[in-house]
Amino acid sequence: MMKTADESTRLTPVTVLGLGPMGRALAAALLAARHPVTVWNRTPGKEGDLVDQGAVAARSVEDAVKAGEVIVVCLIDYDAVRATLEPAQASWDNRWLVNLTSGEPAQARRMSRWAASHGIAYLDGAVLTPTPTIGTPSAAVILSGSRHVYEAVQETMNAVRGTVTHLGDDPGRACAYEVALLDIFATSVNGIAHAFALAAAEGIEPRRFAALATGIGGLLPEMITRFAGQIEAGHYPGDRSTIASAASGITHVINAASGHGIDVGMLAAAKGVIDRAVADGYEREGLARLTTVLHRAG
Amino acid sequence: MMKTADESTRLTPVTVLGLGPMGRALAAALLAARHPVTVWNRTPGKEGDLVDQGAVAARSVEDAVKAGEVIVVCLIDYDAVRATLEPAQASWDNRWLVNLTSGEPAQARRMSRWAASHGIAYLDGAVLTPTPTIGTPSAAVILSGSRHVYEAVQETMNAVRGTVTHLGDDPGRACAYEVALLDIFATSVNGIAHAFALAAAEGIEPRRFAALATGIGGLLPEMITRFAGQIEAGHYPGDRSTIASAASGITHVINAASGHGIDVGMLAAAKGVIDRAVADGYEREGLARLTTVLHRAG
Repeated sequence: MMKTADESTRLTPVTVLGLGPMGRALAAALLAARHPVTVWNRTPGKEGDLVDQGAVAARSVEDAVKAGEVIVVCLIDYDAVRATLEPAQASWDNRWLVNLTSGEPAQARRMSRWAASHGIAYLDGAVLTPTPTIGTPSAAVILSGSRHVYEAVQETMNAVRGTVTHLGDDPGRACAYEVALLDIFATSVNGIAHAFALAAAEGIEPRRFAALATGIGGLLPEMITRFAGQIEAGHYPGDRSTIASAASGITHVINAASGHGIDVGMLAAAKGVIDRAVADGYEREGLARLTTVLHRAG
Repeated sequence: MMKTADESTRLTPVTVLGLGPMGRALAAALLAARHPVTVWNRTPGKEGDLVDQGAVAARSVEDAVKAGEVIVVCLIDYDAVRATLEPAQASWDNRWLVNLTSGEPAQARRMSRWAASHGIAYLDGAVLTPTPTIGTPSAAVILSGSRHVYEAVQETMNAVRGTVTHLGDDPGRACAYEVALLDIFATSVNGIAHAFALAAAEGIEPRRFAALATGIGGLLPEMITRFAGQIEAGHYPGDRSTIASAASGITHVINAASGHGIDVGMLAAAKGVIDRAVADGYEREGLARLTTVLHRAG
């Protein structure tokens, strides 16, 4: 495709496939950055306000792919991506596919091979920050796979306005980071929900509890950085707090929650890991030691 | 006890029972605030550097209690507190017992009744921040029980230099907050350890992972505050992210971790809670909805 002088300054037309909360946030950010945006969703009715902001609603995946040069996909999972793209009779010449759907590293690598076998220029990625950050400096997007494709879509992806990082050629790398980050996020969110349930059972009002609980978020970054250093050094000092006190502490939480009839499955599993560390003789060591007892025997 | 003019300006003599990491941090902060400090630990050998800083090492619990006016206890659990204090033939006249040992609300209430039956002026409490914060403005201590005792020990407790909050007359209140906060902390720490194990299995170096993971800590305070508002309103909008996407996301983490032979017990339990929310028809709602499905049937 030859570019005329006129076209050289225009912004890349972008298609967004999938209008869940994240797909909608991405489409809105691309519109705000003045890209021509075409949107498509399997079940219609989600494109309304995006059309008001200037998006074109495509009637089919084929039309949607045809309208964009960069095709951003953000669906519920990789099966949905395959189910959407595989039957589409769309030409991928001069188009770039950026798949921001959440998934597993192996799925991303498989999707990359599928794309290659169909002549589709493919980049995998993940959005690390919540939807309200998209279009603000707090947004964080990671991408991995072909550097060539990354360079082609980089300017377009900057419409999210935050940090866009290319993690190298392995198309599974972005998902590897994503699942590990989601690991912290999913457990923390479930822990927070559980804590609110326990606090409520103890007669503590949500807002009063939240006022003290927000401080915990502030402790985690320092802890994460410290854990990283200890894991690299293979040395887990118990000078701040020990596996022994963690075992005692989590037992209190389990007993208090059980006493109120609140599910303690997650806590019991966490205690199982702590107990294994104690059984392995690590009770005087620090909590980063838990990283070493998580591999299943056999 | 009549106070002479001389004594009225001296600082209260404090005894610290228990020299684990937190007991040692409390003793050091009290010494730094120029209180006369006596320390005792069941197994000797932990008082060395505190003695260098000016503490007196008591040879028995009786001697330790005798030396202080405010007796701060920070042991591994409430059983240890009872085992330490019950056999001690110490006079508690004009002495105040502040128990900062971690425990359950019911244990704190029981301990308060035990103290009352022995004529001991008792206050329960919890330290909410890690040992390095003690003696700095970041320290946070909560206390509950008799306001009279709180007023007597308040000035001494201010030696921690951060925030000291009295949560009312119920001696179990501080522990209720503590277990609910520990709920978030324990699950998050276990999630962080698990994420480092998963990242390592994916070939991601700890420090590179930490550089991205620290951002998650920054997301939690906003989420906790938002959850509190939604729980109070009984309304859980799914405009940012949904239970459905949480179910999909945690499945990716479980599959990725399982593929590397990493224990997924905690994640599987968390997924069980999410699945229950889906089964209850909440898949389009937000994550704060999880707080309502945690009570066990029956």
